[in-house]
Amino acid sequence: MRVITTIEEMQNTISHAKQDGQSIGYVPTMGFLHEGHLTLMEKAREENDIVVISIFVNPLQFGPTEDLSSYPRDFERDKELAEKKMVDYIFYPSVEEMYPHPSSITIKVNERTDVLCGKSRPGHFDGVATVLTKLFHIVQPERAYFGTKDAQQVAVVEGLVNDFHFPIEIIPVETVREMDGLAKSSRNVNLLPNEREQAPILYQSLLRAKEMILEGERNPQTVITFITEMIAENTDGKIDYIEAYSYPMLEEMTKLNGKFIIAMAVKFSKARLIDNIILEINEK
Amino acid sequence: MRVITTIEEMQNTISHAKQDGQSIGYVPTMGFLHEGHLTLMEKAREENDIVVISIFVNPLQFGPTEDLSSYPRDFERDKELAEKKMVDYIFYPSVEEMYPHPSSITIKVNERTDVLCGKSRPGHFDGVATVLTKLFHIVQPERAYFGTKDAQQVAVVEGLVNDFHFPIEIIPVETVREMDGLAKSSRNVNLLPNEREQAPILYQSLLRAKEMILEGERNPQTVITFITEMIAENTDGKIDYIEAYSYPMLEEMTKLNGKFIIAMAVKFSKARLIDNIILEINEK
Repeated sequence: MRVITTIEEMQNTISHAKQDGQSIGYVPTMGFLHEGHLTLMEKAREENDIVVISIFVNPLQFGPTEDLSSYPRDFERDKELAEKKMVDYIFYPSVEEMYPHPSSITIKVNERTDVLCGKSRPGHFDGVATVLTKLFHIVQPERAYFGTKDAQQVAVVEGLVNDFHFPIEIIPVETVREMDGLAKSSRNVNLLPNEREQAPILYQSLLRAKEMILEGERNPQTVITFITEMIAENTDGKIDYIEAYSYPMLEEMTKLNGKFIIAMAVKFSKARLIDNIILEINEK
Repeated sequence: MRVITTIEEMQNTISHAKQDGQSIGYVPTMGFLHEGHLTLMEKAREENDIVVISIFVNPLQFGPTEDLSSYPRDFERDKELAEKKMVDYIFYPSVEEMYPHPSSITIKVNERTDVLCGKSRPGHFDGVATVLTKLFHIVQPERAYFGTKDAQQVAVVEGLVNDFHFPIEIIPVETVREMDGLAKSSRNVNLLPNEREQAPILYQSLLRAKEMILEGERNPQTVITFITEMIAENTDGKIDYIEAYSYPMLEEMTKLNGKFIIAMAVKFSKARLIDNIILEINEK
C-alpha cells in the first residue's frame, strides 16, 4: 500500500494503471475510518483491480458554525485499517494541495439539498459536489462506493454523476448495523448507557413502517406519525426530523409509490443519530 | 468516420478505445466549420490515435437576446470537411440528449469573465464551462484543442481544467489568418468590400503594438491608445473594446510584464471582428 499526497503523483499513478488495463475502485472518506468505510473497501476490493481510498477532511463542506478543526483524525490508525483491507493507494492530500487558491469556478447543487440533513447545512452539498468533482478527476475510478446511511449524499452524488455524465458507476452500499439493528457510526460511543439501549428503536421503527407499507399503507403522513410516536414513547431522543421523499430526487410525495426514502435524525444527549430505509413500490 | 448521437454510445466507444490503449484528441465545435476548426483537427490528427469532434450548438451559452435559432448550421457540409481531415467520430447530440431536464447542479465561472467579450455576455462562460464539463466526461480526451482567437474562452477552459483537475491537456492553437493577416472567421463574408480592405488593419495594429513593446514600451494605456488611434484613423469600424490583461488570469495590469493579452473587438456594418495577440516578457 502506498500513501500519495500530491495530485500529480496520484494522476500519474492512475494513468499508468489504466494503460495496463486495470480497473479502479474508489472510496472517498474524511478518515477516522469505521466499519461502514471498511465494508465499502471490501466491496471495492472484490470488484476492481486497484482500490484507492482518499482521506481528506474537506473544509468546503463545513459551515461557519461547524467545527472543522475538531473533526476527529487518526491517520496512523486509518492507514493500518486500510492496509488490512488490501487497499492499494491512500490519497492523502493537504488542504493547500486541494485548494491552492480560491476556485475561479464554483459548483452549486440546486436540488435534493433543502430537505433532511441538508436543510440545516446550507452550502454543505456544494462543498461535497466540488470536492468530489476534483477527486473523481484525480482518481478516475470506474466505480465509486458510498454508504446509503448518508442517503442524501448518495442522492446528490448520483445527481452530479448523471447531470455531468461522469464515466463512473456510483455503487450505494447498505448500512452496516450492530447485532441489535443500530446503524454503525463513530458517534454511537457518545451515547449514554440507557440511550444506547434505546437507540435500536430507530431502526425498529423503520422496519415497522416498512411492514405497514407492505401491508398497504400509502399515506406518508400516517407512516411518519407512527414512527414519531414509536420513537417519542420509547426513547429519550429528541426528533430532529422524520421525513419521506421520492428517491433519489428527494421530492415531496402525497402517496407512497415508486422508489422512496424514509429518513430520520434523532438527537440524544451527546450524539445525533441518523438512519433511513429506501423502499420501492411499483403501482399504476 | 462515424456519427454518434447518444452519450451512451459515445462513452462506450471511447471506453473500448481506451482499453485498447488508444489516445483521444478532441475538438469541440458548434459546427459550421471553418479553417480555424480544420487546423485544430489537423493538429489533433497529428498527435492522437483517435480524433473526436463534437458539433453541438449549446443553448446554455446564448443569452436571452442572442439569436440561438439563427446560428448557422450545415451538418452535411461539416461532415464532409471532417471526413477529409480524417476525423474518426463526430459526436452530434440533440439538445434533449445533452439537457434532458434542467440540471440539478450548476457551474459558475467567477473569474476571467467580466472583461473582453464576457463583459457584454453575462452567463455565457457559465454555459461554456457546463457544456465542456459534460463533453469532457463524454469524450474523455487526453488532449483538447482550442483556437486562441477566442482567447478568453481558452483562459476560462484552462481555469476549469486546472481548478477541477480534469486529466486533460488543453492545447491552444494559433489563429489562422488570411494572406493579409485578417483572422479567419465565418463572419468575414459579411464585411462590405471597403471594410474587407480595411480589416487587416486590426492585426497590423497588434503587430505594431508588439514592436512598441519589444522596443521597451511597458505602459498598457499607451499601447491601447496607439492601437485605438490606428484603427480609428484607418477603418470605418467602431471600436467595441481594446484591452490588455494578464493571461490567462485576465487581471488588470499597470505595467506590461509576464504573460499578457492585448485583445480587441471592432464592429463593422454587418460583422463584429475580434482579434488578439498574447505576449510574454519576463522582467524582474
